Amino acid sequence: MYNMDRLFEAVQGRGHVCVGLDTAAEYIPPLARGGPGAVLAYNRALVDATLDAAACYKVQIAYYEAMGLAGLKVYAETLAYIRSRGALVIADIKRGDIADTALRYAQAHFEGDFEADFVTLSPYMGMDSIEPWLSYAETRGKGAFVLMRTSNQGMRDFEYLELGGEYRNCRVYDAVGARLSQAARPGRCGYGAFGAVVGVQPKSGAEREEAAGIRSRYANLFFLIPGYGAQGGAAEDAALLLRQGNGGVVNASRSILRAWEAELKAEGRETEGPDCPADIPFAADAARRAVIAMRDAIKKAAR
Amino acid sequence: MYNMDRLFEAVQGRGHVCVGLDTAAEYIPPLARGGPGAVLAYNRALVDATLDAAACYKVQIAYYEAMGLAGLKVYAETLAYIRSRGALVIADIKRGDIADTALRYAQAHFEGDFEADFVTLSPYMGMDSIEPWLSYAETRGKGAFVLMRTSNQGMRDFEYLELGGEYRNCRVYDAVGARLSQAARPGRCGYGAFGAVVGVQPKSGAEREEAAGIRSRYANLFFLIPGYGAQGGAAEDAALLLRQGNGGVVNASRSILRAWEAELKAEGRETEGPDCPADIPFAADAARRAVIAMRDAIKKAAR
Repeated sequence: MYNMDRLFEAVQGRGHVCVGLDTAAEYIPPLARGGPGAVLAYNRALVDATLDAAACYKVQIAYYEAMGLAGLKVYAETLAYIRSRGALVIADIKRGDIADTALRYAQAHFEGDFEADFVTLSPYMGMDSIEPWLSYAETRGKGAFVLMRTSNQGMRDFEYLELGGEYRNCRVYDAVGARLSQAARPGRCGYGAFGAVVGVQPKSGAEREEAAGIRSRYANLFFLIPGYGAQGGAAEDAALLLRQGNGGVVNASRSILRAWEAELKAEGRETEGPDCPADIPFAADAARRAVIAMRDAIKKAAR
Repeated sequence: MYNMDRLFEAVQGRGHVCVGLDTAAEYIPPLARGGPGAVLAYNRALVDATLDAAACYKVQIAYYEAMGLAGLKVYAETLAYIRSRGALVIADIKRGDIADTALRYAQAHFEGDFEADFVTLSPYMGMDSIEPWLSYAETRGKGAFVLMRTSNQGMRDFEYLELGGEYRNCRVYDAVGARLSQAARPGRCGYGAFGAVVGVQPKSGAEREEAAGIRSRYANLFFLIPGYGAQGGAAEDAALLLRQGNGGVVNASRSILRAWEAELKAEGRETEGPDCPADIPFAADAARRAVIAMRDAIKKAAR
C-alpha cells in the first residue's frame, strides 16, 4: 500500500488539513522558548493536540537547518515522533538534482535518520531528477509532491511563462503537470505515488477558472495545497483544487503555530514578555481549535 | 570584497578547476573506507593535495545527507576545513523556496555550522525565492550560482522549452538568465555576486553556437560549469563558457575523487579487495595529477 493511499484515507476520515511545523523560535509562547529543545517540545505538543483533526504534517527543513546540526537533530526527532504516533509526515525539502545525486537524496529522506513518508521536489532540472525518487518510492511505498504552480508572487516569473512550440497555449507549470500526470501509476485511491504542489490563488474569476482547469486536467495527481491562511487564500479557493471531496491536503503553518497569539490578541491580552499567559498547553489547545476551524471551513466549501 | 571577486582572482592565479567533493564511500580506496570519519579524512587529504592547483571546492550535500546526522557533521567539518585553509567552497544545495523560508536557508548556509562561501539555488519558484539570499549575501560578501541550463539529459524537459509571448524565440533558461543578469550588480571583477550554473553541452555545432550565445548574452554572470569529465564534456566545450580566460569555474567530481582507480586500471592493477595498493596518500597524489591535467587542458583550450 502506498503512502498516497494512506493519505487519501486520512483525508476521508479526518479532513484536509496538513499541519505545517515551520517552527521558528518566535512562534512559540515566550515562556516556552529556549533553543532547539523547546522547538521539539512544542512540535510534540502540537502533534498530540491535532492528531485526530489533521490529515498529515509537513515539516519545513529550512527552519531546522537554520539552527545547524542541533536543529537537524530536532528535525529528525520531529519526523520520528510524528511517525511513531501513526501519522503521515511530508518532508518539505524541495530537492531537485541529477540522477546519482537524486538517489543519494532519496536514501537520505526515505530511510535512516531523516525518514519521511513524503518529500517535496523541484522539477527545474527535468524528469531525470524526479524519476530516481519515483523508483525508490515504489519499492518502499513512499510518495512525493513536485512543485507545479506555487502560491508566492514570484511564481509568475518562471512557472507562469507562456510556452510556444508543442506546448502552445500552455504555461511552464502545465508542462510539469503533464509530465507528472503521464508518469503517474494510480494506486488504490486513484492517485499516483507522486502528486503536485498547487497553491491557492485567491480571489479573481480568472484565477478560479484556472484552478478548476488545473484540477480537471490532472485528475490522477494528488495535490499538496499551500497558500491558505497566512498567504491569504480562503477555504473556497482551496476547495477548487479538491476533487470529489478528496484529492488534496491544504497546508497551514503560521496560523496554527501562532494560534495562541491570535487568540490572546483577540482578547486584548499580552503576547510578549513575562505577562503573556500562554504556555505550551495553552498553545496546543489554540492550535487544535485553529485546525478544527480550518478543517470544518474546507469541508463546508468542498461540499 | 565579494566572494565572487575572490573567486575571479583564484581563477586568475590557479586556473578554472572546481574540485567536487561528492565523496561516496565507494570512491575512497578500499583500505581507507569506513563510514563518515573516512570521508572526512579523504576530503582533507584531497583538499591539501589540490590547494595550489584548484580555484575552489564544491561540496554536494546529498552525499552527506545520505549518511544522516553523522554525515551532516562531516559535511560541516569539510566546509570548515576548506575555509580554514583559505580556500573558497560552494555548498551545492540547490535550495529554492519562498521568502521567509529562503531567509532561514540563507541563515543556515551563510553562517553557523554550515557556513559556505557560495551556495547553489534553483529558480523554479521565481525571483522572490532568490532575492532574500541576494540581500543576505550582499551584507556578508557571499555569493550564489542559480541553476540556468544544466548538463543532464532531463534539462530538455523544462529548462529547454520554447517560450511564447514576450520571450518568443527564447527558452525557459533564457528567462532565468535574463532575470539574473538584470539583478546583477557587478563587483570589482565585473561579475555580480550571483552567477549561474551552465553545464557543458558536448559536441555538436549547434550546441557550440548555443554555448557561445549564452556566454555573450550574460556577460555579467560568472558561471559554475558542471558536466566536465564523468558527464562527457571536454575542455574545448567548457572553454566556450569562459570569457577572456575567466568568468567561470569548471567542476569535476568523480574523475578527481576516483583518479586513484583510473590510474590503477591503466596499469592493470587491482582496484578492489585487499590487493588494491591504493591508500589515502596514493589517492591524494592521483587527485592532484587529475586536477593539474584538467587545469592545463582548460587553460590551453581557453587561449
